[in-house]
Amino acid sequence: MNITERVALQARRARQASRGLAHAGSMLKEKVLRSIADALIAEAQTQGDERADAPRSVLAANARDMERARERGMNKAFLDRLALDPKRLLEMASSLGAVAGLPDPVGETVRVWNRPNGLSIGLVRVPLGVVGIIYEARPNVTVEAAALCLKSGNACILKGGSDGLETNRALVELMSRIGLAHGLPEGFMEFIDSPDRAAVSALLQQDESVDVIIPRGGEALIRAVVAESRIPVIRQYKGICHTYVDDGADLEMATRIAVNAKVSRPATCNAMETLLVHESVAGEFLPKVARELTERGVEMRGCPRCRAHWPGMKEATDSDYATEYLDLILSVKVVSNLDEALEHIARFGTNHSEAIVTRDLDRADRFQSEVDAACVYVNASTRFTDGYQFGFGAEVGISTGKLHSRGPMGLEDLTTKKYVIRGHGQIRE
Amino acid sequence: MNITERVALQARRARQASRGLAHAGSMLKEKVLRSIADALIAEAQTQGDERADAPRSVLAANARDMERARERGMNKAFLDRLALDPKRLLEMASSLGAVAGLPDPVGETVRVWNRPNGLSIGLVRVPLGVVGIIYEARPNVTVEAAALCLKSGNACILKGGSDGLETNRALVELMSRIGLAHGLPEGFMEFIDSPDRAAVSALLQQDESVDVIIPRGGEALIRAVVAESRIPVIRQYKGICHTYVDDGADLEMATRIAVNAKVSRPATCNAMETLLVHESVAGEFLPKVARELTERGVEMRGCPRCRAHWPGMKEATDSDYATEYLDLILSVKVVSNLDEALEHIARFGTNHSEAIVTRDLDRADRFQSEVDAACVYVNASTRFTDGYQFGFGAEVGISTGKLHSRGPMGLEDLTTKKYVIRGHGQIRE
Repeated sequence: MNITERVALQARRARQASRGLAHAGSMLKEKVLRSIADALIAEAQTQGDERADAPRSVLAANARDMERARERGMNKAFLDRLALDPKRLLEMASSLGAVAGLPDPVGETVRVWNRPNGLSIGLVRVPLGVVGIIYEARPNVTVEAAALCLKSGNACILKGGSDGLETNRALVELMSRIGLAHGLPEGFMEFIDSPDRAAVSALLQQDESVDVIIPRGGEALIRAVVAESRIPVIRQYKGICHTYVDDGADLEMATRIAVNAKVSRPATCNAMETLLVHESVAGEFLPKVARELTERGVEMRGCPRCRAHWPGMKEATDSDYATEYLDLILSVKVVSNLDEALEHIARFGTNHSEAIVTRDLDRADRFQSEVDAACVYVNASTRFTDGYQFGFGAEVGISTGKLHSRGPMGLEDLTTKKYVIRGHGQIRE
Repeated sequence: MNITERVALQARRARQASRGLAHAGSMLKEKVLRSIADALIAEAQTQGDERADAPRSVLAANARDMERARERGMNKAFLDRLALDPKRLLEMASSLGAVAGLPDPVGETVRVWNRPNGLSIGLVRVPLGVVGIIYEARPNVTVEAAALCLKSGNACILKGGSDGLETNRALVELMSRIGLAHGLPEGFMEFIDSPDRAAVSALLQQDESVDVIIPRGGEALIRAVVAESRIPVIRQYKGICHTYVDDGADLEMATRIAVNAKVSRPATCNAMETLLVHESVAGEFLPKVARELTERGVEMRGCPRCRAHWPGMKEATDSDYATEYLDLILSVKVVSNLDEALEHIARFGTNHSEAIVTRDLDRADRFQSEVDAACVYVNASTRFTDGYQFGFGAEVGISTGKLHSRGPMGLEDLTTKKYVIRGHGQIRE
């Protein structure tokens, strides 16, 4: 059987499993998740004894992946993402526990209404069915994605980056073994055990068996998946987030927000990449914020009007404004009014998170109404765009698309709805 | 400018227009829709006078399309779908009036909650942005699709079948002129004025400007769009709908429902294509329903066990069970129990509409829970799967997909949501 046939078989097995999984009780799903957490804790505690070298040990598998990655000369940041240790296993266990304790979204009756002919129409939340997840190096995604799919009653097909192949295989073996022991149907968690690029292509063609693909990783990965997939894709391309400091804004607040949005974790998609400043406050605000940012190691690139206020800045080009730096670099632009800020955001924004700092109610309303983005902030940092910060408990990802899900995605985003209609013999005239 | 460049330009114009259209007031949108309805009524009333030959007259344009279609030897059913007359114009006007009067979905605050740090997070309904609609012959789709998009604050790009090119152009000119006269932004309604297949291909690549594609037509059209599109597609492939008559069912009711589901409008996607019958009732039920169906001209194709009860039946093959007849033909199968019925539906169903006729509460619950379809009925005809029958007022179509929309789609399905977050200087720790 070649890789294409193997993936097609796995997809059909997952589809078959999804039928049973949709009716797995909340208590059973919670029990499986807590058992997996316990197994990871046990694994973390046995590190160093002879079991750590057993073939199924997650840490031993990770050690082999790490060794190969070092041989291939991967850099420190990459190795750090790939590495597991007892502490990280305990973190995984803790996030499994958190997902286990969330309310089960499946079976919720969203609405029921009656029609004049006596039909009762109910709208009920059900799992999507089969979710394919394609991701890069970090092994914790394997556990989190699998847990979210299981909690929401979906079968999953996991395809991780080839560098973590042994680690991911060991994690899936552990989770799968526990699920099957609790009576979950075979195929409830499928793992594509191949570094072959053809495996991804094969998966993206299984539109008869797979309901949705969620790619997690860099923009190049996501664009490749969207271009090739016959299955709907929930995607997050990137986040070029803006903060606009309005005429008359509280400049202490604006500084605090801008510094937080840029510096607190620059490599995340909700970090600010461009600061827009109304011309009337630029003279006071720019030197103030530039001092704070420079102290924290941020390189600023600005328009000519910015540079008049802070000559140390490099010149920003359109290509800067179109770049997601994910780094301690910030584009800055002085604008003449709110319209110019809105134009700039419409041109360079990525529909992710945008903020205004203002004291003016009309302009706050207009900004929130006219900016086309998943999350639009007034007087707060864009860094809050996050499932945990929104109170969703767990995050599947953040969608910059508009269909099905938009913004931070919780368990509900892994469900769809079904109409259940009850009658007593009604026919249509 | 070639066709690809022209379509790309239209898409950018629509994207630009969508920004203004998202904030067009409900009253303005309603006024435009009512003015268009008035213009169609006026057009219907002037038929026969000299104005009917004016270049912009819808009926004159339709006469030219009809003449060409006749020359090309199109059949009667096709010509009937394409033809307009004053009565059909009045029907269009009436459906415009209905859409005009529906509640505006845009701006609804779905939920607001506060976080412990004092952030207020609101979830607000907003238009999708730009909707591309690709459809076949019937000119009423031009008017209905445009009206639904306008009411929901979306710019639209319309690509109709080439046979209706002149009619559609005249309709769009009329609607567009009225919208612009009321101050809607240029590009709010774009029409792809070309019979060239390359125009569709070009449209499907505009993922920077177009948010969603809704194809309306036969399965071949829809599969071609899904295969080629870089833009998310809301789709309805087909409806192979089943009715399962359970052990102990009320056979009078079962007969009434089966006849209605098959005969009342066989060419629609919610018509029954397969009747499943529990073996314990087959002996009484099959001859009874077969007589009624045969009287109404239905050809039945059944399994060997069916044919024992009604020898006139042809034999059904797997390919019959996999066929959407859209005609007065019915596949029939006797099953040993509910499990076998569920298996059959899982194998041959198209996730559209499925029904059980039963008196047993457990089996009703199990059927509604385990069947994976947009609409699952107990003791009612599948023919009710329809936006009007569900009480939605207008229907964009029916989705057999699971993402974004499932089942009958109303105006809400042309919207997405946006998080609007208000703070007073909050930053993330």
